[in-house]
Amino acid sequence: MIEMTHDSYGKSDVRLMKVTRGPERHHVIEVSVDIRLEGDFEAGYTDGDNTKVLPTDTMKNTVYALARRHPVETPEQFALLLAEHFVDSQPQIARALVSVAERPWNNLEIDGRAHPHAFSQATGERRTAVVDHRPESTQVRGGLRDLVILKSANSGFSNFVEDEFTTLAETDDRVLATSLEASWRYDSTDRDFAAVHSEARTILLKVFAAHESLSVQHTLHAMGERVLQEITGLTTIHLQMPNKHNLPVDLEPFGMDNPHQILLPIDEPSGFIEATLKKG
Amino acid sequence: MIEMTHDSYGKSDVRLMKVTRGPERHHVIEVSVDIRLEGDFEAGYTDGDNTKVLPTDTMKNTVYALARRHPVETPEQFALLLAEHFVDSQPQIARALVSVAERPWNNLEIDGRAHPHAFSQATGERRTAVVDHRPESTQVRGGLRDLVILKSANSGFSNFVEDEFTTLAETDDRVLATSLEASWRYDSTDRDFAAVHSEARTILLKVFAAHESLSVQHTLHAMGERVLQEITGLTTIHLQMPNKHNLPVDLEPFGMDNPHQILLPIDEPSGFIEATLKKG
Amino acid sequence: MIEMTHDSYGKSDVRLMKVTRGPERHHVIEVSVDIRLEGDFEAGYTDGDNTKVLPTDTMKNTVYALARRHPVETPEQFALLLAEHFVDSQPQIARALVSVAERPWNNLEIDGRAHPHAFSQATGERRTAVVDHRPESTQVRGGLRDLVILKSANSGFSNFVEDEFTTLAETDDRVLATSLEASWRYDSTDRDFAAVHSEARTILLKVFAAHESLSVQHTLHAMGERVLQEITGLTTIHLQMPNKHNLPVDLEPFGMDNPHQILLPIDEPSGFIEATLKKG
Amino acid sequence: MIEMTHDSYGKSDVRLMKVTRGPERHHVIEVSVDIRLEGDFEAGYTDGDNTKVLPTDTMKNTVYALARRHPVETPEQFALLLAEHFVDSQPQIARALVSVAERPWNNLEIDGRAHPHAFSQATGERRTAVVDHRPESTQVRGGLRDLVILKSANSGFSNFVEDEFTTLAETDDRVLATSLEASWRYDSTDRDFAAVHSEARTILLKVFAAHESLSVQHTLHAMGERVLQEITGLTTIHLQMPNKHNLPVDLEPFGMDNPHQILLPIDEPSGFIEATLKKG
Repeated sequence: MIEMTHDSYGKSDVRLMKVTRGPERHHVIEVSVDIRLEGDFEAGYTDGDNTKVLPTDTMKNTVYALARRHPVETPEQFALLLAEHFVDSQPQIARALVSVAERPWNNLEIDGRAHPHAFSQATGERRTAVVDHRPESTQVRGGLRDLVILKSANSGFSNFVEDEFTTLAETDDRVLATSLEASWRYDSTDRDFAAVHSEARTILLKVFAAHESLSVQHTLHAMGERVLQEITGLTTIHLQMPNKHNLPVDLEPFGMDNPHQILLPIDEPSGFIEATLKKG
Repeated sequence: MIEMTHDSYGKSDVRLMKVTRGPERHHVIEVSVDIRLEGDFEAGYTDGDNTKVLPTDTMKNTVYALARRHPVETPEQFALLLAEHFVDSQPQIARALVSVAERPWNNLEIDGRAHPHAFSQATGERRTAVVDHRPESTQVRGGLRDLVILKSANSGFSNFVEDEFTTLAETDDRVLATSLEASWRYDSTDRDFAAVHSEARTILLKVFAAHESLSVQHTLHAMGERVLQEITGLTTIHLQMPNKHNLPVDLEPFGMDNPHQILLPIDEPSGFIEATLKKG
Repeated sequence: MIEMTHDSYGKSDVRLMKVTRGPERHHVIEVSVDIRLEGDFEAGYTDGDNTKVLPTDTMKNTVYALARRHPVETPEQFALLLAEHFVDSQPQIARALVSVAERPWNNLEIDGRAHPHAFSQATGERRTAVVDHRPESTQVRGGLRDLVILKSANSGFSNFVEDEFTTLAETDDRVLATSLEASWRYDSTDRDFAAVHSEARTILLKVFAAHESLSVQHTLHAMGERVLQEITGLTTIHLQMPNKHNLPVDLEPFGMDNPHQILLPIDEPSGFIEATLKKG
Repeated sequence: MIEMTHDSYGKSDVRLMKVTRGPERHHVIEVSVDIRLEGDFEAGYTDGDNTKVLPTDTMKNTVYALARRHPVETPEQFALLLAEHFVDSQPQIARALVSVAERPWNNLEIDGRAHPHAFSQATGERRTAVVDHRPESTQVRGGLRDLVILKSANSGFSNFVEDEFTTLAETDDRVLATSLEASWRYDSTDRDFAAVHSEARTILLKVFAAHESLSVQHTLHAMGERVLQEITGLTTIHLQMPNKHNLPVDLEPFGMDNPHQILLPIDEPSGFIEATLKKG
């Protein structure tokens, strides 16, 4: 007896740019959308019966049609719009998971002023949202990823466990670099998502910069805790902070010291640190 | 009141090549290892108290030291070795999740014979294993990913739902392409992992090639079902088969027809199809 | 008779981060260095005679040792330092080509002020330099790449050639997006490289934003021409501006118009446009 | 006075899959095409005068239309077809450079036999061609890239230059790994490109495997020399063999030796070795 215990299907990486041309200035938003549907789709798997299957091509079309019909303002709002559309559109769809990642375009600054219709994609950082929608419940998460940051002071790592394979030296002065990924859950679907995003991002960076870090874990916790303390309406936050190593180069063979000045950045391996905090 | 509801840490992308030189021939295995530990690590987060924290640098060292001390034969065996080491080594470690992905090197065939010490990395396919080990239980998963396959016959998609945004035409003849990811769970830690991997891979490809496909879902289910039917000792299988689209190019403007012959392969967007099957 | 008509060797992707800790603030510079040497190396190829071969491992070490011994201020200055070192160090080295690409780190802005020792890697843009040094001559090039920019007005493309395979519609209003790569040649090795880089970048963006574009070629030419006109001490500029397409989505099947508002960004294919301008 | 000393334009990454369905079996070929045109295009740059500009969109359409009209057999043949088309189609086009890279699909082997219409993309290796066509001359190059190979015996590196920054130890036993890129020039446009490609590839691998290597340079030269010696109709060959390092891990801190057995594969930095050989 073989049964199917889980299935989902959808469309990945639906890319959209929407250009809105106002009288004073243009507005550009670019997003990538992932859609996953769950529901009464078993016959499609077991018998190739597609009568309840909404084509993933239609999901792609829906992204473009709804973007034409409605504003596209924030990843959260657009993900909500899409997730509700799918669950409402077909009775067999029991759940829609929609992820939206924004690649920000900023107005070019020309002669000290924001140009009205010229833009640059100034950062690799992404602003993210995930909406998990069912007829009876909706969860909205906001967040960011690929925010690459570094602090060159107030970071150490010592008093750790040493076993037979430990060679790492204790230090009270190292470069700490990471590519921050953060995701917080709203307690409502009706929040000022843009304002919360901006506030959360500011707090995360402020704590990262100021923290007297005894480890990545220590700083990650302080960053998440502060967001939950200062922003109302968030129930949880998840942070992921890989330790992107910058290794001091051994210059002794050349008769030189190296006071944490000459470093080798490596992509592999990296430390991995994550935690979820919850407001009780 | 803010509490931490989940945390883990570890090391990602620890790369290892092991070369074993036998009298007749050399053997090369290359893997990338991810390690995640869970346990009594809260004080590290809340207070920067590292006294229970095994450095991720030590985890990296452990990969190399254990690779020297023991054979590295399959991803499953090496992941088991590492996961058990970590849980056994420190009482505060309650769980180790170790993922190993192998990048296969094959002997070069020179004059019709396998060369004893020259190799090529002939494929982008990865052989994978994930071990989830706690003092009281151990789960072993084997699998593969990035196996890029295509069938140019016996594949259709029709009788699907049509809504206001559906434009897809029904077809009984399309190119079906995917990058297969499969992962199966063993019912024991003591199996001939290499033999099962080879058998599962063979079955997956055989069913993919032969199946009269009414949809990706349909073919995915048939592939997974057959693996569970034919191989004893597996409890579940999870398959992920993105639909990598090859779009027929419209040649009408040039006065030409296009009987599914001239296609545009695109990376974005792609369909996403997944399911987990379980043997009852 | 087989002869060797060209050869070079060196080291690619030597990554370096240098952290300088001043009393007021820290300074972080991260670069990736490519080194190519030419000279009397033929016996190494033909006979495996390495007696004139400086190991590429030594080249890597040299990057770190010279970065410790000297300031690392701009890609141009550091490339000059390295290129001159290699040509001076061994008589058989007749030419050194050194490329340096900087990944900029910017001080984090916290509470409206630049933080003294916290940084973000805020952009994918790279600042570049290439030095081509021989005992008798030295060429220095500065530049940038991966500067992703877009204009949503003042861009058209019409009156072009139409042949049997042309389907493109004329337009006087399209989104023009590119990933700019620029490289200019200095007439001297003794220039304020940082000032020129900043000035050239400003001019490129200003012309891009303001230009009434009749084609990518047209705008590229205007951008390069202005740089050579306004900055003294540059002899040539090379610009490369791939046309990164954002295709209008056909919404007619859904009964909607699309006034260049809903676009599909694609990575493949892209237009390719390049030119070199020279000051006479 | 500013003049334009060089310009070209075209289309990059035009992806094409062609499926040919024979009675016995199907044939699948997938290529990516780059097109560059040179000619009388100056007015397009200086004045935005597009009357001689063939749109890059038309170049893309041409790839698909010619693929429908003609067979697509080898990268060389398809690149020739396209390059000749462009130069013949418009008098202002003085030169066409067309590059074609094939991503090979192989028939799946099922039950020991090649399946007639199921395929896998079994390798990251690309088969390449570049055609440089002008009304008065045509050059055809064939080649390959991303052929990742390794030898674990018969490779050393010693007797090299030592300067103040040299720390590398001499060795007569190291792992030599590379990602081979080779490109050869045919003396005619009328050759059996598939046969030459196969023969050149076989020779390159055979020499790589058998060579008593004193350095990468030494092996590269032997490989190229043999191709020119054994295959008639080739005038030059260019080889590029980055030294993809696999560094022995220092296990002494754990009381273990490491007889070149436990290695760390790194992507950055890599050695870079290239040469062009010519048959006199």
